[in-house]
Amino acid sequence: MKTLIKNVRILTMDASFTCYELGYLVIKDDTFIDIGAMTDLGADHYDHIIDGKGAIALPGMINVHTHIGMIPFRSLGDDTPDRLTRFLFPLENACMTEQLAYQSGKYAIAEMQLAGITTFCDMYYFEEALAQATDEMGSRAILAETVLETSPDTDYPYGGLKIVEGFIPKYLNHSLITPAIAPHAPYTNTEESLSQVAALSSRYNIPLSIHLSEMTFEMDKYQNEYGKTPIAYLADLGILNSRVLAAHCIFATPTDIQILKKKDVAVAHCIGANTKSAKGIAPIQAMLDAGIRVGLGTDGPSSGNTLDLFTQMRMLANFHKTHLKNRAAFPARDIVRLATMGGAEALGMSDQIGSIEFGKKADLILIETESVNMFPIFDPYAVLVYSAHVGNVQDVFINGEQVVANKTLTQANLGELRASLDTEMIDFRKEVAARKE
Amino acid sequence: MKTLIKNVRILTMDASFTCYELGYLVIKDDTFIDIGAMTDLGADHYDHIIDGKGAIALPGMINVHTHIGMIPFRSLGDDTPDRLTRFLFPLENACMTEQLAYQSGKYAIAEMQLAGITTFCDMYYFEEALAQATDEMGSRAILAETVLETSPDTDYPYGGLKIVEGFIPKYLNHSLITPAIAPHAPYTNTEESLSQVAALSSRYNIPLSIHLSEMTFEMDKYQNEYGKTPIAYLADLGILNSRVLAAHCIFATPTDIQILKKKDVAVAHCIGANTKSAKGIAPIQAMLDAGIRVGLGTDGPSSGNTLDLFTQMRMLANFHKTHLKNRAAFPARDIVRLATMGGAEALGMSDQIGSIEFGKKADLILIETESVNMFPIFDPYAVLVYSAHVGNVQDVFINGEQVVANKTLTQANLGELRASLDTEMIDFRKEVAARKE
Repeated sequence: MKTLIKNVRILTMDASFTCYELGYLVIKDDTFIDIGAMTDLGADHYDHIIDGKGAIALPGMINVHTHIGMIPFRSLGDDTPDRLTRFLFPLENACMTEQLAYQSGKYAIAEMQLAGITTFCDMYYFEEALAQATDEMGSRAILAETVLETSPDTDYPYGGLKIVEGFIPKYLNHSLITPAIAPHAPYTNTEESLSQVAALSSRYNIPLSIHLSEMTFEMDKYQNEYGKTPIAYLADLGILNSRVLAAHCIFATPTDIQILKKKDVAVAHCIGANTKSAKGIAPIQAMLDAGIRVGLGTDGPSSGNTLDLFTQMRMLANFHKTHLKNRAAFPARDIVRLATMGGAEALGMSDQIGSIEFGKKADLILIETESVNMFPIFDPYAVLVYSAHVGNVQDVFINGEQVVANKTLTQANLGELRASLDTEMIDFRKEVAARKE
Repeated sequence: MKTLIKNVRILTMDASFTCYELGYLVIKDDTFIDIGAMTDLGADHYDHIIDGKGAIALPGMINVHTHIGMIPFRSLGDDTPDRLTRFLFPLENACMTEQLAYQSGKYAIAEMQLAGITTFCDMYYFEEALAQATDEMGSRAILAETVLETSPDTDYPYGGLKIVEGFIPKYLNHSLITPAIAPHAPYTNTEESLSQVAALSSRYNIPLSIHLSEMTFEMDKYQNEYGKTPIAYLADLGILNSRVLAAHCIFATPTDIQILKKKDVAVAHCIGANTKSAKGIAPIQAMLDAGIRVGLGTDGPSSGNTLDLFTQMRMLANFHKTHLKNRAAFPARDIVRLATMGGAEALGMSDQIGSIEFGKKADLILIETESVNMFPIFDPYAVLVYSAHVGNVQDVFINGEQVVANKTLTQANLGELRASLDTEMIDFRKEVAARKE
């Protein structure tokens, strides 16, 4: 199967930021095999030809931190101070079932595909069901089963440790899915469970995702109990290494940043969720200056509400420019890099994805430029960061397969996905109504 | 002409925030004449019936500060520190013509209509041409001719003063357009020109729009030269009163806020533009607590890049929550109010627009809930602020006329508007290319 995509403005996001103002791409099966300017396009046979009509072609976006089982929680108690303890944890333990997680997962993956996100890193419960959802939808993902004392998918403490032992072997050789493990946070795990998680990650050589330096009470706890930051605490426990993806790191100190660099820990920056919850702004500029791998995350649909990186890119620009008091900080091109290659680096997948280059996996999005907000284009990176929105995503390819065509899912029906999720939410809605009374 | 819109979730934005989870609306000519729950809808004759299919019905959004002539500048030098002096002012003086402003104006108005903005307050040059554009497009607007020493539409200093004398009388009795005057900023006007502008505003009883307390150099200048803030300076000059709409006010002090309240000055809050340019966060909470009228502004398409209030609402939530270190600050409902009734109050038009109430002008938008990001809806205000994007706006009515139907302009062709603007931009593009070399 050989597909030609022509008449597109290509931002390859390779190391030299190579662009083609009017270019073409050739995908053979799951791989990019040719990229060039339209003037260099020779005659050949193709099974499929797509005229991009001036759309912007970009590597698929990479969402390095989310919770795809949490669509049911969206728009519930957003502005409530005690939301986590009032709604999220109790409702998860009361109503989150394998079927609800699965239906939510499919819906969330559909939402990400429509948003041009071709790879995501999830952290939730029932990850085996979410792996099935991911496989059916055809997305690329790292799926990390959560470990904490009480979880909705197990009856015993830190049961995620056992669940993941069954889950990992089934997906170790999947072409799109990487199984992983996720201790929820240092403060919701014992030292023993953290050590067990780290041992599992090492034994199977799988990613380890964790919420870290996200909460003020977390910072206080480790200062009071150990006289150190949570990052230093985990480092001293021997948990930190290049397989670790730390989400948030809002309160990382300069010393923490040195630790993260030394241990080659990657960071998931979730600016939208972090600022909606008034937590703060992670020191991403300092991390990047130190050479730390950083990607962008939407966080879950109840924390960040949208599962797209356009929102994150614009938030990142405005928050960091203002925080650094420098409108030249984080120029648009660097932000688009964070949403693509940065994410690939953070997930340890930059040899396969993150840029449009010969031999890389064909994860590709086309962003139309016909909508009113997409004119004029003096700088395509600036257009993507400051003007574009998720509704401009037109076509999406994952591993060479087209999953979105003309803003519509090709392999699933959105109305059906919503109806199935809605049906599965009946008990959840009853429980919400009871708690609001 | 009587139109029934049924099966909509109505957020009236009246003083009690009345909502109908499933409601109907009746528009007669240019006015709302009935609003209620579907269960109370009786039999009647209608010229036109629209089934909203569960869409959210909201009063038209109000953009209280923009520069509609500046579409040509979008995505040009966004991350450049000396952008205003390097690109904006020189290019305006070299290439901004009446025709370019007019074509840009039509395009910008189309963009706002598609975004659900039914009323805007503009501040630019060639406002008579922009009035023609507004009239042709059928939007409601306050159009303020800019006054500063050098402007592209006049050959003599502060020529805007003369231009506006011709412009005002022609539009004083227009049903949708209010002429106005806009001294660019205190620092680009002499005391004499400021006084003349204020006298004109008083004589014709028209709005006066001004950029105020926006720049650090502006704050320093008035401190150094007069030992006061720019707001105190203007108050002492006798310029401030209830006709004044002050844009930005980023650096307003507590004393400034008292002055603004005492003089009943309204404030245009442009959070997206203010933070993209790293300027800062205006103390809007304190202003609202003091009882100051506040609306939301996109600023111009080169400063804010998008002409929609969804971007502004989400930015406002995240920036102010984080700034105030309180996730409960600015709950979603209050933010939607700022985008509607708040804007109407800021423009002195709250007796006519800003809410869906019997007898008010029929400025109405329907936001579809079928797109993937619009589910579930536990709180429709939260959905609008945290999940919705401009691409969800489905139908737009201004003064009873439907200007957008099913996400498409009814009275203009977007492709033609773009082609006309693009043609008019030839010289502009040449000048940009020359300056980039």
